[in-house]
Amino acid sequence: MYPVIEWKDDAVVMLDQRLLPGEKKFITLRSHKDVARSIREMVIRGAPAIGIAAAYGIALGVSELEGDPRLQQSPKGTPPQQEGQPGFLEGKFGEIVAAITATRPTAVNLFWAAARMERVFQAHKDDFRRLRQELLAAAEAMDREDYEINHAIGRNGQELLKSGDTILTHCNAGALATAGYGTALGVVRAAIEAGKTIQVIAGETRPYLQGARLTVWELQEDGIPVTLITDGMAGHVMQKRMAQAVIVGADRVAANGDTANKIGTYSLAVLARYHGIPFYIAAPLSTIDTGTASGAGIIIEERDPAEVRNFRGQVTARPQTAVYNPAFDVTPAELITAIITDEKVLYPPYGQGIASLKGLRQK
Amino acid sequence: MYPVIEWKDDAVVMLDQRLLPGEKKFITLRSHKDVARSIREMVIRGAPAIGIAAAYGIALGVSELEGDPRLQQSPKGTPPQQEGQPGFLEGKFGEIVAAITATRPTAVNLFWAAARMERVFQAHKDDFRRLRQELLAAAEAMDREDYEINHAIGRNGQELLKSGDTILTHCNAGALATAGYGTALGVVRAAIEAGKTIQVIAGETRPYLQGARLTVWELQEDGIPVTLITDGMAGHVMQKRMAQAVIVGADRVAANGDTANKIGTYSLAVLARYHGIPFYIAAPLSTIDTGTASGAGIIIEERDPAEVRNFRGQVTARPQTAVYNPAFDVTPAELITAIITDEKVLYPPYGQGIASLKGLRQK
Repeated sequence: MYPVIEWKDDAVVMLDQRLLPGEKKFITLRSHKDVARSIREMVIRGAPAIGIAAAYGIALGVSELEGDPRLQQSPKGTPPQQEGQPGFLEGKFGEIVAAITATRPTAVNLFWAAARMERVFQAHKDDFRRLRQELLAAAEAMDREDYEINHAIGRNGQELLKSGDTILTHCNAGALATAGYGTALGVVRAAIEAGKTIQVIAGETRPYLQGARLTVWELQEDGIPVTLITDGMAGHVMQKRMAQAVIVGADRVAANGDTANKIGTYSLAVLARYHGIPFYIAAPLSTIDTGTASGAGIIIEERDPAEVRNFRGQVTARPQTAVYNPAFDVTPAELITAIITDEKVLYPPYGQGIASLKGLRQK
Repeated sequence: MYPVIEWKDDAVVMLDQRLLPGEKKFITLRSHKDVARSIREMVIRGAPAIGIAAAYGIALGVSELEGDPRLQQSPKGTPPQQEGQPGFLEGKFGEIVAAITATRPTAVNLFWAAARMERVFQAHKDDFRRLRQELLAAAEAMDREDYEINHAIGRNGQELLKSGDTILTHCNAGALATAGYGTALGVVRAAIEAGKTIQVIAGETRPYLQGARLTVWELQEDGIPVTLITDGMAGHVMQKRMAQAVIVGADRVAANGDTANKIGTYSLAVLARYHGIPFYIAAPLSTIDTGTASGAGIIIEERDPAEVRNFRGQVTARPQTAVYNPAFDVTPAELITAIITDEKVLYPPYGQGIASLKGLRQK
């Protein structure tokens, strides 16, 4: 898969995922506000991809300050904090980070990316030219690392699959949701690369249809067999033994293993438990939020009711219709068979497993 | 609610439910083939309404034969079987019934209505003029009776609801699915008429969106509070204790209580069990098929994959996408808290309860 996001000529270029599968169009964003809007409006989505977009967006925001007289009054490029308005750059950086992180409250990767960029900022804020370079380098490193992380998740997770398995997935935790390869779909890809025969059943994932529009599309692009169902069919599919495992991504994993993911995930977890089918979360360490003790502490984003009342301009219910539109739900740890991370596969009790992750201790 | 189907000037007039909630348009059908097509294409849907449409369609089909020379060569109106081609009317009646019943294989009301019309046919086939009148009278009686049956279901079922309850429902088992008032929604209406405060959460019911388009619409028309969710939100709604009971209709209830209903119903039944929420089926006796021992014997209609790949012309997945599109699923009796019929409320074991129904023994 080609990159869904990249830095090009002082701008962020993104595949506009809202237009898939109908149209494959890249858009060029020249300000961090445009990046923030693109995250909010789901031009790009998926927790890891949102993290990368946030990093690029912050790098872009700082880049936009180039030539600002409040930043640098000397033509020699002397450190701006000494020449420009005191605290101006710090204030601006805070505004940029706030604009980027205010977009999707549930995705912890957003805050994870912002924290990493903040560290780069603190290290280099006294030299604007260097700061620009280092922020961009950090964003590009996160992008590259995410790609490698997905391959590690794939390698770890594919061990759990048998040749002949059909995997039920939800939303899109694929190449389109990450720097490439995918988390849940990375596990599928790695199993296939290991020589196993794997098929996928994709739930369409209303209201935004990421399953139908994105998962089906990217698996078809890779020639991986995929069958589309509506979300309500999941129970029937399990009753008919048409799926041997459920694998989904995560938007945030709490310290005890409770996992926020796309609305509909919790229903799948309950259905999988009832049918004795394993239910796996595939998530990079950046999705694990040890600062949140349990699912009760995870903020669930509610989105525009119009997403439920309409589908691309086609009315499904009248405009005055009351709607409940949470974007995510929380699956309690006890319903999760295993959490597949880039470091290792975690099994219950997750509190212990998460605490044992070396990658998190180093953060 | 105004009637969704009626006989008018030698034609069948139906509300075109495909156009709701955007447009309220009635269409006039002048042949039984048009009625069959309307059932297949879901101009009218819902097991009881399909039964009524089938009855009117059969009456219309016989009506169309008026003046056919093979039927009646004498101008005096002598019984056609003596004057016309031998067996012609019987053959035609068989064709009409076959055309009507070949439309939706899961709805038992179709076959129930056809059997009742067949009895009228056998009683009056020797007098064409009388036959036409009696078939129409039978269809109109079934229409009226269904309305009364729904009120009986409502009276019986409303006892199960407490004031303040929020009821989760799926698809449309309302006035639009019946001669009026509704089965599942009839229970809600009866509870409100009994002075209880009741709210409804409606699952949108992909792929055909009967929940969003029809249930929301008809409850709004009656001023009953309703909130629309996508199907995948049901688990989350139960986890948050936002619903106190699930009530749905039925397309066919087997002799042991296993129930076929709109795809997605089985998922709700499993979710309700997991959360300790009662799961009720509301269904007239005409939906109970004692000729089918269990759910294993129920044929599940698979519909056009295009329903899942598109929504009103808006593409959700590419045309070559593999789709699984069963229209119904089967909820096993053990997940059903009670079956609310027009005669009484049945509790497990359902085999015994169903065998005890006086209304079925009289059939």
